Amino acid sequence: MSVGTPGNTRLEIDETLLLKQIELLGKVGIDPSGGRTRLALSEQDKMARDLLQQWMKELALDVKIDPLGNIFGILYGEGDSCANALMIGSHIDTVINAGPLDGVYGVLSGLAVARAFREAGMRPIRPLIVAAFTNEEGVRFQPDMMGSLFFTGGIFLDDALAAKGSDGVLLGDALRRIGYAGGTDPSLVLPAEYLELHVEQGPVLDSIKIDIGVVEHLQGISWKQIEISGTANHAGTTPVSMRHDAGYAAAKIIVFLRELACASENTRTTVGSLRFLPDAINVIPSKAVFTVDMRDPDEGRLVDGEEKLLAFLRELQMEEGVGISVETLARFKPVRFDSELAAAVEDAARIRGFSSMRIVSGAGHDAQMLARVCKAAMIFVPSQDGISHNPAEHTTDEQLLRGARVLLDVASERLGHTGSSL
Amino acid sequence: MSVGTPGNTRLEIDETLLLKQIELLGKVGIDPSGGRTRLALSEQDKMARDLLQQWMKELALDVKIDPLGNIFGILYGEGDSCANALMIGSHIDTVINAGPLDGVYGVLSGLAVARAFREAGMRPIRPLIVAAFTNEEGVRFQPDMMGSLFFTGGIFLDDALAAKGSDGVLLGDALRRIGYAGGTDPSLVLPAEYLELHVEQGPVLDSIKIDIGVVEHLQGISWKQIEISGTANHAGTTPVSMRHDAGYAAAKIIVFLRELACASENTRTTVGSLRFLPDAINVIPSKAVFTVDMRDPDEGRLVDGEEKLLAFLRELQMEEGVGISVETLARFKPVRFDSELAAAVEDAARIRGFSSMRIVSGAGHDAQMLARVCKAAMIFVPSQDGISHNPAEHTTDEQLLRGARVLLDVASERLGHTGSSL
Repeated sequence: MSVGTPGNTRLEIDETLLLKQIELLGKVGIDPSGGRTRLALSEQDKMARDLLQQWMKELALDVKIDPLGNIFGILYGEGDSCANALMIGSHIDTVINAGPLDGVYGVLSGLAVARAFREAGMRPIRPLIVAAFTNEEGVRFQPDMMGSLFFTGGIFLDDALAAKGSDGVLLGDALRRIGYAGGTDPSLVLPAEYLELHVEQGPVLDSIKIDIGVVEHLQGISWKQIEISGTANHAGTTPVSMRHDAGYAAAKIIVFLRELACASENTRTTVGSLRFLPDAINVIPSKAVFTVDMRDPDEGRLVDGEEKLLAFLRELQMEEGVGISVETLARFKPVRFDSELAAAVEDAARIRGFSSMRIVSGAGHDAQMLARVCKAAMIFVPSQDGISHNPAEHTTDEQLLRGARVLLDVASERLGHTGSSL
Repeated sequence: MSVGTPGNTRLEIDETLLLKQIELLGKVGIDPSGGRTRLALSEQDKMARDLLQQWMKELALDVKIDPLGNIFGILYGEGDSCANALMIGSHIDTVINAGPLDGVYGVLSGLAVARAFREAGMRPIRPLIVAAFTNEEGVRFQPDMMGSLFFTGGIFLDDALAAKGSDGVLLGDALRRIGYAGGTDPSLVLPAEYLELHVEQGPVLDSIKIDIGVVEHLQGISWKQIEISGTANHAGTTPVSMRHDAGYAAAKIIVFLRELACASENTRTTVGSLRFLPDAINVIPSKAVFTVDMRDPDEGRLVDGEEKLLAFLRELQMEEGVGISVETLARFKPVRFDSELAAAVEDAARIRGFSSMRIVSGAGHDAQMLARVCKAAMIFVPSQDGISHNPAEHTTDEQLLRGARVLLDVASERLGHTGSSL
């Protein structure tokens, strides 16, 4: 048995197949306008899961599904255990009308690493686990990154199963309906190290033409739902002074949140979902319900932003004579990744001759949950014009393959390998 | 034959029955929270129409329904023709989660006037027509006041039937589905005079404790739908400078419209309906679609408000890098009512010993369409706290009856009557 190193490995990504699988999975849930929608635990998500499972089984990976529907494909190392595993993971659910790469790229590149071992007839010394986590996007069910949160012990199973979808369906019911409530005890497969390869979903690498982003830390995320209660009244007869207009109050908050983002160094604020009631052209809205997505790489600044928002709400409540209630949907502190793994990614890029830089992730990723329980790192490739969560999301094939090669090199170095046939 | 006058008439409103019918009609489409929803041409609207028809037939009125579903109950005068008729009308459709009185009060008070003739065994000299116009509210189908607009020749039948509902259903299909596409040629019943009794839906009469509002004129109405096209992108990664946030642009417009209303003497602005796409917590909205309701009793000021809005949209389009399109849903100039009829209402109130004042209507009413083709007037009674388009809409029984008595007096004076049994 000889332990492999990047220098002498014969492991190679099957690049044609990787790109083909990204294309195929990206077509699941596609609509005529060119976007795809695979909300967590929907029929479309089930179709993508079935396809992924099939591909895992074609590589003779041991497929395990846990009670929240997280999917694990295991390539065992020297023993038939999951101890001291390296996990490569991401997700295959999407937002509404999404691009083709977000999540999918990371899971299928993990699969490509497993395939590289299979095709070279080599067995890794440590086990490799390819993971697809349930409901990373959090569009249908909150909180987001739920699968990896559960996997790392951050949420009780019963609470996760009781999450109510934006369509009113309970997560547990949706999970059973698509047949993905598995029996695997997730603690069996808790890894020692975790790698996630992802498109940046931001403009930095693309704008300065860098191949590889070595993610140093990940923004903290605060998700809230705000409900404003005003008074429905006739649009034509009610003077401004007598209005308690929930819609106007919501608009003031949206404008305030933009000002907050502009005044801060790194705080990002978004109101992506909003509803008025009764939602009629000639009736002053009695209710406005909307979400706030606030992020910052610094926990102190994130808390500061949340406090400023609350202070503004208190003031607005008095000014407009409306009721305001705030519910926290998700709250994650910023994460700093493992410096040893980050250095390994940087080395691998340098050896391959790719340019790289340290970068902050603006998006939340399953990696931030894994960072709570093991050494974790993320590798980014450029997103054209920084566009993501949009059908126009794009990274060139060559950029995608560079990321996959770096992932393979880091993973094979960490896993080691023998020349024994499998 | 002796022509009746308010001094010698024996005509009386059946007050108990009028209040009972208002209560009964107000229960159609009621929901557990206490509001009622009878959107135009819905199943609930059909139930209300059926009830109204039944009550018209109990009074042996000749019921006619025109091709847009407007309902007319005719009490013939000396001849069996509709020539030189006095019409008393309003509507029985509602907004979403409405109060009990808006529209219903006027139609049923018209019925109470017809009943007064029947119960006294008297025949009017001129014909009396009680009218319920289709889709006054305009919540499901635009434009609002559509039935009276059609009746007075302001919209072609085919265009009205092709209006697409907020639920996607075509008006013509909805009308046929509930069986109210009638065959009466509406020009047969074009009246010489029109009266409409209505709750004020504003705070003026209630706040200064006046019994009767003599409506001098009616605000102009401008309804627009604005669609903003931005770029969907990731909420966590996209810097402010790279955002084209359709939701933020919509919020800026809502705040601008409030400022416009505050800066103007009488302009009222409301954004009652709004939708974001893709409507996801972590995606910058690519689209925002919302309505603008702008009103002013002065046409010059209304045009000025519309122009200021368009100028703001042009500026915003540049600033935020978004596309903005504007569609006019409805546009009605302010209306001045007939001074002779207004004086008759004032006289009738004075003779009854009720306080009255001249007033501007903030709401749109079918009367403004009728004012295009005949002498028209409106009578208002107070709305408690000015609340309308809300389940809390309320006027006391005594206030409702005062309005009905004034309506009866004005109508019987205009119609004249004989003592002959019918």
